[in-house]
Amino acid sequence: MTDMSQASRAVVLVSGGVDSTTCLAVARSEGYELFALTVNYGQRHRVELEAARRVTAVMGVREHLILDVPLNRIGGSALTDDLDVPKDVSFEEMGSRIPVTYVPARNTIFLSLALGWAEVLGAGDIFVGVNALDYSGYPDCRPEYIEAFERMANLAVREAVEGRIRFRLRTPLIHLTKSEIIRKGMALGVDYKLTHPCYDPGPDGRACGRCDSCLLRRRGFEEAGLSDPALAPVA
Amino acid sequence: MTDMSQASRAVVLVSGGVDSTTCLAVARSEGYELFALTVNYGQRHRVELEAARRVTAVMGVREHLILDVPLNRIGGSALTDDLDVPKDVSFEEMGSRIPVTYVPARNTIFLSLALGWAEVLGAGDIFVGVNALDYSGYPDCRPEYIEAFERMANLAVREAVEGRIRFRLRTPLIHLTKSEIIRKGMALGVDYKLTHPCYDPGPDGRACGRCDSCLLRRRGFEEAGLSDPALAPVA
Repeated sequence: MTDMSQASRAVVLVSGGVDSTTCLAVARSEGYELFALTVNYGQRHRVELEAARRVTAVMGVREHLILDVPLNRIGGSALTDDLDVPKDVSFEEMGSRIPVTYVPARNTIFLSLALGWAEVLGAGDIFVGVNALDYSGYPDCRPEYIEAFERMANLAVREAVEGRIRFRLRTPLIHLTKSEIIRKGMALGVDYKLTHPCYDPGPDGRACGRCDSCLLRRRGFEEAGLSDPALAPVA
Repeated sequence: MTDMSQASRAVVLVSGGVDSTTCLAVARSEGYELFALTVNYGQRHRVELEAARRVTAVMGVREHLILDVPLNRIGGSALTDDLDVPKDVSFEEMGSRIPVTYVPARNTIFLSLALGWAEVLGAGDIFVGVNALDYSGYPDCRPEYIEAFERMANLAVREAVEGRIRFRLRTPLIHLTKSEIIRKGMALGVDYKLTHPCYDPGPDGRACGRCDSCLLRRRGFEEAGLSDPALAPVA
């Protein structure tokens, strides 16, 4: 299915947050033809979807596919259930436990969907903005998980088994701190105003500033010596 | 999350066909509390969903979850696109190529969803009716693929990484012929009238009798010395 006359294709998982947007910028900088996949999984923070649309609209994406997958029917997460999103958690505590915002098998489900689309597109590279440092609590962000998925993927689909393609999971952010991610994105021209940080935005769509995601993001911008454009007060 | 006071739980992927229904019967015979997962992926043969409902209704399933996942938006298969389903293919040809009815990454996507639900339920065992003999063309039905998925799964989710559960992919049919599958199901009390065989049923829901699925199923019943109740003419 691969058309060799074109630039290599890549599927990029895009949520609309800092990490996936930076990951998309890295893929763009490497010259891929970009196919962005956003999974609408019944998350409470639907503002993510709008951020994903804004980001892909300005970053040269050939196609942006938004798939509805109702993971809220499986349950088990504060992002899809009616549990409260924790606020003002210390960075020590964040690093020591898997957060309640963990969604069961989320990356596995997202990467599986990306794999199916990648096979159809003839795209060998799948980019995902996982990060093993700031979010050490998520098991599906660790290098050993990523390697196991990649191995499985190359046994799973026709294009790989018949030798026409070799799938690679590209995780350019996996060993970076949040401030390193932000610096890299700024160097690649990312406009972080377009992204959205928050697990629990208010009715007006404004970031709460206090959930794990907001706190990590704010610290990342501070350490990078920058202010977070998405947290700036409305003028 | 596991409730030790109950029977062990299992998630079983159920399509409503012969193989998954037999697989469900095997899980039932082993005493599991059964959670059936059916993925509605935009397949043309929606009669499968009705068969899945009929089967789970009579087989002691605690909960039957039907998830809508629009894989037809990814494309690449005669089951979800508008390609013609091949008819009257020889068994030799079926065994020598991956059929056009192959859906990209289907089992990987289905198993990922099953994995997420299994974690929420505290179910360590996931049953899937894959078969490496009759459908040798599907890469995601081979033992090496199943082993790679299982390894990945135990690195992916919190319950496994924190040591409370160990996921096993159970594939009781993987080395059986279709006639052996049917004999096993009959011995376990499966009513195959409830199942549906066909990739391309007519407007009245009747099996076509000529697609790969119908042909393999008919041969299975013949070799088992039985007639296929789903292909019997309406009285």
